[in-house]
Amino acid sequence: MAPSGVEKEKIRSQDIFELDLKGNIVRAAKDESLKLTECAPLFMSAYELRDAGAVIHSHSPNVVLATMFAKRVEPGLSVLEITELEMLKGLAGHGYHDVFELPVVDNTARERDLTDSLRKAIERYPRTCAVAVRNHGIYVWGKDEVQAKTQAECVDFLCEILVKMRQNGITKDMHPMGI
Amino acid sequence: MAPSGVEKEKIRSQDIFELDLKGNIVRAAKDESLKLTECAPLFMSAYELRDAGAVIHSHSPNVVLATMFAKRVEPGLSVLEITELEMLKGLAGHGYHDVFELPVVDNTARERDLTDSLRKAIERYPRTCAVAVRNHGIYVWGKDEVQAKTQAECVDFLCEILVKMRQNGITKDMHPMGI
Amino acid sequence: MAPSGVEKEKIRSQDIFELDLKGNIVRAAKDESLKLTECAPLFMSAYELRDAGAVIHSHSPNVVLATMFAKRVEPGLSVLEITELEMLKGLAGHGYHDVFELPVVDNTARERDLTDSLRKAIERYPRTCAVAVRNHGIYVWGKDEVQAKTQAECVDFLCEILVKMRQNGITKDMHPMGI
Amino acid sequence: MAPSGVEKEKIRSQDIFELDLKGNIVRAAKDESLKLTECAPLFMSAYELRDAGAVIHSHSPNVVLATMFAKRVEPGLSVLEITELEMLKGLAGHGYHDVFELPVVDNTARERDLTDSLRKAIERYPRTCAVAVRNHGIYVWGKDEVQAKTQAECVDFLCEILVKMRQNGITKDMHPMGI
Repeated sequence: MAPSGVEKEKIRSQDIFELDLKGNIVRAAKDESLKLTECAPLFMSAYELRDAGAVIHSHSPNVVLATMFAKRVEPGLSVLEITELEMLKGLAGHGYHDVFELPVVDNTARERDLTDSLRKAIERYPRTCAVAVRNHGIYVWGKDEVQAKTQAECVDFLCEILVKMRQNGITKDMHPMGI
Repeated sequence: MAPSGVEKEKIRSQDIFELDLKGNIVRAAKDESLKLTECAPLFMSAYELRDAGAVIHSHSPNVVLATMFAKRVEPGLSVLEITELEMLKGLAGHGYHDVFELPVVDNTARERDLTDSLRKAIERYPRTCAVAVRNHGIYVWGKDEVQAKTQAECVDFLCEILVKMRQNGITKDMHPMGI
Repeated sequence: MAPSGVEKEKIRSQDIFELDLKGNIVRAAKDESLKLTECAPLFMSAYELRDAGAVIHSHSPNVVLATMFAKRVEPGLSVLEITELEMLKGLAGHGYHDVFELPVVDNTARERDLTDSLRKAIERYPRTCAVAVRNHGIYVWGKDEVQAKTQAECVDFLCEILVKMRQNGITKDMHPMGI
Repeated sequence: MAPSGVEKEKIRSQDIFELDLKGNIVRAAKDESLKLTECAPLFMSAYELRDAGAVIHSHSPNVVLATMFAKRVEPGLSVLEITELEMLKGLAGHGYHDVFELPVVDNTARERDLTDSLRKAIERYPRTCAVAVRNHGIYVWGKDEVQAKTQAECVDFLCEILVKMRQNGITKDMHPMGI
């Protein structure tokens, strides 16, 4: 896992923390001033609950905007329902006519305080490969780093289209996700 | 032709399938776990019906959004009519004042199930160098790989402008394609 | 000047045509199949009428969209009036509070048929460093290739902002160019 | 500090001016035709009033558009209030639920004439790491060049989201910054 609060594009291999599956640090970054990312318990949730091999966290503007359209399910939890877009086929277990339910949890002041709601969302939406965080970003996982990356690319593309559909006034007779 | 379901940016020459003009695999990818792209019969349609030398398939967001505006012609088939944009001159057989008719076929759960409607669209629109697929993407061809690429660039540019015209509320007195 | 109808990103120095100031070809491209760009008389107009040292032609989507908002002045000629944007200072002879008048001529089926209207626009708008072509693109010039490039960058930036202002519903009380 | 009116992407180390903390030129650019940037007194204001170690000036389209939405506070001064976006945590001294107040001063014909209003804005908004200039761009600082860059990235991201929220018709029940 990456260190916290650094310029991510400058991370070197010696800056990475190695953890065991209980979340204990096995090998810390060489530079002792570096601290483990606050996302650690969130990443661990996907490893534990979904047997993930890799997890990606992003602040993609496409995703951040899409979370604002998410439909409220209950306090703290919303959902984006995405259907009839070819890129759905890129998501494990989904086809073109399926509805991909992307859970969106409310954001919190501290990243680690997202853990409970993220775990509940993972359990409630057993088919999802991602949990978004309102006004914040997304956690996406896969069985290995290749699948985590392709899932992240597909979800990002889907959110980009969702936002642009809205920008372009696509109505329900033009697409089932229209406004 | 490319293998199916892989990271396209990592394809090496040994991963490519070679086919004869009847669609039979002449030389498979070295890695036996790789499968031929599901688009094979779609690519073959352009080789057969249009004497194409190269075909490109893309999931361009510009095209995906533009397909949502396409006008219904009959069940399963729509059309985008594009006119009075300089980039039309880049399309073989088209001038600035011509109307480029881009057929848009409905998407299907399996890519190979697009073959029939794509072939019908190619036959119905003999001047087109491309068939789009609603909520999915586009197939574009040319006499060789250079022309296929320039046709793909022009169609993508035209779809980008079409989408942005709509975003900007361009009305019919501002441009004949206005809303 | 560049050859016509080729992939511009692959042009090599031996593909360039050299012309004298009367527009005669002094040295043709080595490859005899290459033809001189149809823009030649348009480029020559800026060399003759404005003593330009370099001229750039682009199909920038920002510019193409902005031309659709241009105000009709007379048949065949429109104008974009751009003011109170810092990037105006980058245009030779313009300050922040000035109104940059960018003439926009109607497009024609053949590029060379733009020559008359472009020359008239250059004469009518003596302070402009560029003439746009409706639904097509722009010609921008400068005293040398560095200035031509910076003028092209500034005009493109101004058109990008103009289009995005419209997309964002900027009203006249928010900016004098608002809607 | 950089020289004025040059192509910024071509600046070499010998083109940079070195100044002392009183704003006097200690070492000029080697090329005597180069003049010190007009922004010098603006950069100095952040060094003096905020103990900055580095200041960045940009003409980001995201910021330029966002300034047009800024709420008028008094003649010459407006403010953008940004809240409930995760990227706020990247700004020194701000959390997710805080309101980041980004002062926006009116633009002037000459860059150096911005100095007074920029200094007043810095004093009035002691928590800000940036001052934007209406229809122009932004000045962002940090304790060193790394922090100045990360602050500039965060402010730019926030302005991008603000503009796209407006483009997408995000209402107040979807986000507190909605329209």
